[in-house]
Parts: sequence; C-alpha cells; structure tokens
Amino acid sequence: MQEFIEAAEAAAEAAGAIIRPLFRSQLLVDSKGDASPVTEADRGAELAMRALLGARFPGHGIWGEEYGPERADAEYLWVLDPIDGTRAFVTGRPLFGTLIGLLHRGVPVLGMIDQPVTGERLAGHPGPADPLHRALGRHAALPALPQHRECRAVLHQPRHVRAGRSPGFERRRGAARRVTWGGDCYAYGLLALGLVDLVCEATMKPWDWAAIVPVVEGAGGRVTGWDGRPLRLGGDGRVLALGDAAMLAEAVGLLGD
Amino acid sequence: MQEFIEAAEAAAEAAGAIIRPLFRSQLLVDSKGDASPVTEADRGAELAMRALLGARFPGHGIWGEEYGPERADAEYLWVLDPIDGTRAFVTGRPLFGTLIGLLHRGVPVLGMIDQPVTGERLAGHPGPADPLHRALGRHAALPALPQHRECRAVLHQPRHVRAGRSPGFERRRGAARRVTWGGDCYAYGLLALGLVDLVCEATMKPWDWAAIVPVVEGAGGRVTGWDGRPLRLGGDGRVLALGDAAMLAEAVGLLGD
Repeated sequence: MQEFIEAAEAAAEAAGAIIRPLFRSQLLVDSKGDASPVTEADRGAELAMRALLGARFPGHGIWGEEYGPERADAEYLWVLDPIDGTRAFVTGRPLFGTLIGLLHRGVPVLGMIDQPVTGERLAGHPGPADPLHRALGRHAALPALPQHRECRAVLHQPRHVRAGRSPGFERRRGAARRVTWGGDCYAYGLLALGLVDLVCEATMKPWDWAAIVPVVEGAGGRVTGWDGRPLRLGGDGRVLALGDAAMLAEAVGLLGD
Repeated sequence: MQEFIEAAEAAAEAAGAIIRPLFRSQLLVDSKGDASPVTEADRGAELAMRALLGARFPGHGIWGEEYGPERADAEYLWVLDPIDGTRAFVTGRPLFGTLIGLLHRGVPVLGMIDQPVTGERLAGHPGPADPLHRALGRHAALPALPQHRECRAVLHQPRHVRAGRSPGFERRRGAARRVTWGGDCYAYGLLALGLVDLVCEATMKPWDWAAIVPVVEGAGGRVTGWDGRPLRLGGDGRVLALGDAAMLAEAVGLLGD
C-alpha cells in the first residue's frame, strides 16, 4: 500500500503543478467561454497523472474523466478526476479538487482529495498510517452524532435533486439542522474533518466517488448508495456519505422512495 | 492615508489572530448550535479591532456589526464586520472575510477584505500605492467587457432576492452568461480580481459594503445602489458592483423596477 500512497501523492503533485498556474490566470480572465482554460487544466493534469501512474504500474488500469478507461478490467484500477468542481475553478474559488482513487477488484482501497491552491490534502486507506495533511487546520476525526435533528448536511444542487427524483431527499432536507448546497468534493473533505455530518448527492460518476470513499471511511465515516449498499461501478450514481456510520439506517430510511 | 492603511493592516492582523484558531476548531465541531463559536470569534475580533483603531485615532468614530456605533458623527468613521460570511465560517470553507472600511464624511475612502486563513488580502484606496496581496494568485486588474451577455455574474441568495422584490433582478439573471449564487464579501474580491463581472445584492448593511467600495473601485470597477447612485448610510441596502463602469447604465436599466 505504501507505494500506492506515494504514487498518489506524486500524481497529486504533478496535477497541481499544471492546475495552479491556470487558476485565476489571465487566460481564465480573458476567455469568453469557460471551456478552454478548464479544458486545458483538466486535460493537462489528467495526462500528467496517467503518465506517472502508467509508468509506475504498467499492469494497472486507469479511468479518467477526460480520457476514459484503459485496462478497466485490471485487478487494480486508478480512477481520476483532475478538476472536480469546475464552477469553483472558473470563478476563482479554491474549493475544487483533484480526485485520485484506487479500486481493487471494484472496491475503493485508497483515496485522495487534493486542493492544489490552498495545499489541503486528505487521504484515506486501510492501515495504521495517517497521511492527512492539514494546511488550513484540523486532522480528520469524526464526532459521534446522537440525534439526526442535529445533523449539519450538505445536499447537492437542486437540479441534481430533480435528476435523483426522490421525495426522500426532501425529507432528508427537512430533518437537518442546517443545510448547505453544493460543494463538490470539498464537501466530503469537510465531512471527513467533522465540520458537516451528511452529504447526499445524485448523478455521481465513478471518478466523483472512487476517491472520496476511502477518505471518509478512513476518518471513521461511511459512504454508500442511497440504499445503504456499497458503491460499485455501474451503480445508479446516488451517493450518501455520513460522518457517523450509526446514522446509516435512519438516513437510508429517510431517503427511501 | 498611509497611517490609515497601516492601521487597517494591523486591525486585520489582530482580527485574524483571534479568528484563525476558531476556524475548523474542536469548539466548532462540538458545538450543538452554530451561534457560540461564531459569536466568540465575531466579538473577539471586533473588540481587538476597536481597541487598536480607538487607540490610534481617538477622534475617529467606529461602527461594528457586533457592538454598534460609537461617535458615528465623527469626520472619519471606521466600519467593521469581523466575519462576513458566517455560513462559510461554520462549515469550514475559507471564503468568509474580515471587512474594514473607512468613511470620510460618509464617503468610503479606504477598504480592506481580509481572508485570515488563506492569507488573501485585498485593499483599495485613493493614491498611487497598490497594497494588494495575492496569496492565491493575481493582482487586481479589471478587463473591459464589451457585451452584457458575456457577463459572469454573482447574485445573492434567492431569499435576499425576495427581500429586494425586484423583477429587474430576474432580468439581470437572464442576461448573464453564467450565474453563481452567494459568496458574501469573497464575491467582491473575485470581482476585483477580474474573475466575475457583476455582483448584485439586497439587504446589505453599512458594514457589508463600506469596505468593498474602495476595493472594487480601486481596481477600476464601480459600486453603486441598484439606482446607479453612490451608496450612503441610511440607504436601502441594495448594492450593484461592476467590474466595468461602462456597464452601469445598462445594468441599472435591467434592475429598474
């Protein structure tokens, strides 16, 4: 596992070196559309990560958002999203992230959420090491939550709620003490840091969730589908993340159709 | 002006020293409500700024969000918001800011937006000096915008739109190329950096806008009411900020009731 962690760290560094100069760049300011600077950063960062991981682990598969799958049936599969949170990137908010996940026979075993501008990096994996970085404060450690009504929730944008088509989502919203909208991968990082308690999203692709599962579960939380079952390739894209695994049955009950 | 700038920098440092340890703190994680850690940070930071500014300028007035006005009829009036963006603070997002404004006979002459966690600090004032900091990249410099339809707008939250009760707000929304919601003072910082082009809000208090006017206008932009007139104490709290002052007539026309 140690060599996988070092490779993920190196991949995050390689992606960050390409993304940082484009963040708040003159190119972004001058661009009439959002597409070109984002595309340049996205593609450049993914190519750099693919080159690095491909050289270190020629037998592994790689699946990135920009360039698709390669050897997706390999025992180990790296799943990459160079810029999760495009809207944050183009508006100059340092809340996007580079996501690096590693699946072993379809099960997430290593995850990294990297914010290349603030220097925040969260990683999760099985084993004793705790490579969590804390550029802006706090190690990951999750408090137990006795009451659902105390829940500080992050829900995805309303348009994605419609895509999820669940009245349970509205029940979940009504049960929370405080609701924040959106946030992409950063919201799962805040959950791993104990600052929010539940994140609920629909229409998630594998590169959106592969990295966050080990980060959240490594901090003591739980990530499943809305049905409470483990996420898997080919699933329906609905994701439920909890800071306290003891909330799972109640959260699934609220979300159920 | 130089001694005012140095005092504002010192006040921002004093506020940041109180706010930083509470950001993502265990106190915030453990708190059952949001009020207490925010209140502690808010009040402590405002008291520190009031003590510092009061000692340096005993004849000046001070008006802070937490402790109200003191000598509000003085020639110079410092207007303070220790934490603008409470929601961001309590959820651990480094997008809140400490706002320090200085009015001279009611006219904003110096403004500072300080993000004490990322180290971003934007300042604006008349004169040749440019004390803009750029911890996360870019000096303030605004591009000209030839077309309204190219506009990247930040609009305030829908509940504030209802408070503004303006169909013009919906027209403004429809005319923009891209719309982002919310963001508090950070949105005006992004405007000063050229990353968004228009910010439109209602229900703004003096401590919300006093600091942002010199920051945006010092970068070449324009801040007015929805009617295009200068903001003043006792106004209706509706604020329009533009990266390109040449857009003013068109934006006011779209917002007009």
